[in-house]
Amino acid sequence: MTKPLIFVTNDDGISAPGIIKLVSIAKKFGEVVIIAPDKPQSGMGHAITINATLRLNKTNYHNIESEYSCSGTPVDCVKMAVNKILPRKPDLVLSGINHGSNSSINVIYSGTMSAAIEGALEGASSIGFSLCDYGIDADFSQAEKFIEQIISQSLKHKMPKGVCLNVNIPKLKSDELKGIKVCRQAKANWVEEFEERHDPYGRPYYWLTGKFVNFEPESDDTDEWALKNSYVSVVPTQCDLTAYDALDNFKSLLK
Amino acid sequence: MTKPLIFVTNDDGISAPGIIKLVSIAKKFGEVVIIAPDKPQSGMGHAITINATLRLNKTNYHNIESEYSCSGTPVDCVKMAVNKILPRKPDLVLSGINHGSNSSINVIYSGTMSAAIEGALEGASSIGFSLCDYGIDADFSQAEKFIEQIISQSLKHKMPKGVCLNVNIPKLKSDELKGIKVCRQAKANWVEEFEERHDPYGRPYYWLTGKFVNFEPESDDTDEWALKNSYVSVVPTQCDLTAYDALDNFKSLLK
Repeated sequence: MTKPLIFVTNDDGISAPGIIKLVSIAKKFGEVVIIAPDKPQSGMGHAITINATLRLNKTNYHNIESEYSCSGTPVDCVKMAVNKILPRKPDLVLSGINHGSNSSINVIYSGTMSAAIEGALEGASSIGFSLCDYGIDADFSQAEKFIEQIISQSLKHKMPKGVCLNVNIPKLKSDELKGIKVCRQAKANWVEEFEERHDPYGRPYYWLTGKFVNFEPESDDTDEWALKNSYVSVVPTQCDLTAYDALDNFKSLLK
Repeated sequence: MTKPLIFVTNDDGISAPGIIKLVSIAKKFGEVVIIAPDKPQSGMGHAITINATLRLNKTNYHNIESEYSCSGTPVDCVKMAVNKILPRKPDLVLSGINHGSNSSINVIYSGTMSAAIEGALEGASSIGFSLCDYGIDADFSQAEKFIEQIISQSLKHKMPKGVCLNVNIPKLKSDELKGIKVCRQAKANWVEEFEERHDPYGRPYYWLTGKFVNFEPESDDTDEWALKNSYVSVVPTQCDLTAYDALDNFKSLLK
């Protein structure tokens, strides 16, 4: 019997600790192929490279035969894998483990989740994993058990067409994690400030900074609630952005 | 009475013909402020600049007081406007007119639409406009009447929270356009190929190329159908990516 074909990517770059961990887990489940960005690509959202060329280079960070760094975005990596490198459609696309949360509204800014969404668009079961810890020395070990459980189920049951999973893991020790909670994306946003500084020539430049605000902290069916209450959050995620509830309203306004 | 405050951005860059046209229309409705990318940013999706600094420079392409080019992405431009430049929350955020279609699945790759979505996230009524013509000499004049109608309605009726409009205009003459159709995002995708070339030193590089495929050409309630049948398509668009239909399925699988 053929082993499952598992494609792995991320947005922190091919040598980040998070993808090293994810590949080590993925190897237990099947044949792994990696294409990941050659540099950090956090916050790239669903960006693709259409006005420039792409480079692909063999690497040896993960000690497997098929691993490549790519000069493009996480979504480029998935497209390159599906259309150029993989011998067949992958059984599973994994993205991460991201260094930092991709819960709630972060899903649309996240390179990690955009890669998973692209995997779903390509018709593969896809999962984005994120640990709510931005540190380079983040401890991914407590996540392992849950990642294995979710991968195992995803190989047994193909996901609905166009749907992927957004999995976020709280920064907690193993015995503090209460389990998995399937939930919806919380309504939240960033309240931003641009910090103005001046370069050595006196010209201003800006750093984007922000504070995350959950608009519905009382709702117990959201990913933010799950994470705050020590659960691994799992949000089934898709890419039809139609605001169905608003269709009739606009139909009457724009006649 | 205060004139409406209208913020305008795009993804083709601040001097592109599409934004010149859009600003000239917007001026009829209120006070216009522009921050747009200083270079083409097509395909940037919802990318934001978090690992680099941003620059803002005064420009004079549109002959208005408050216009700036920004070194960042379309979404950066909206965040910069709302948090740094605008005197108050804008009454309307306009993005475009994009040179090329942003219908269907293109919404997630599009810098134009990501700017509109970001406007909605910031609580403003927001509209992304795209003309289905990639040419630099594209004729935006037939779009004018419909853009005016949609802007006018959007100033009269505030959009539901978090919802923006994705407006696409077919490449047709005025008398060939049948009107406006409010519709949903079609299920479609790109079938991609990477064209491999070699640089002067013999090393391979790749260009992303692709063919658009509508998976439901028979459905008459989609944006693809509307465009193909000579209508301006308007899709109410939001950014909750939760796959609500799949929640129960995954709840039973991941217990």
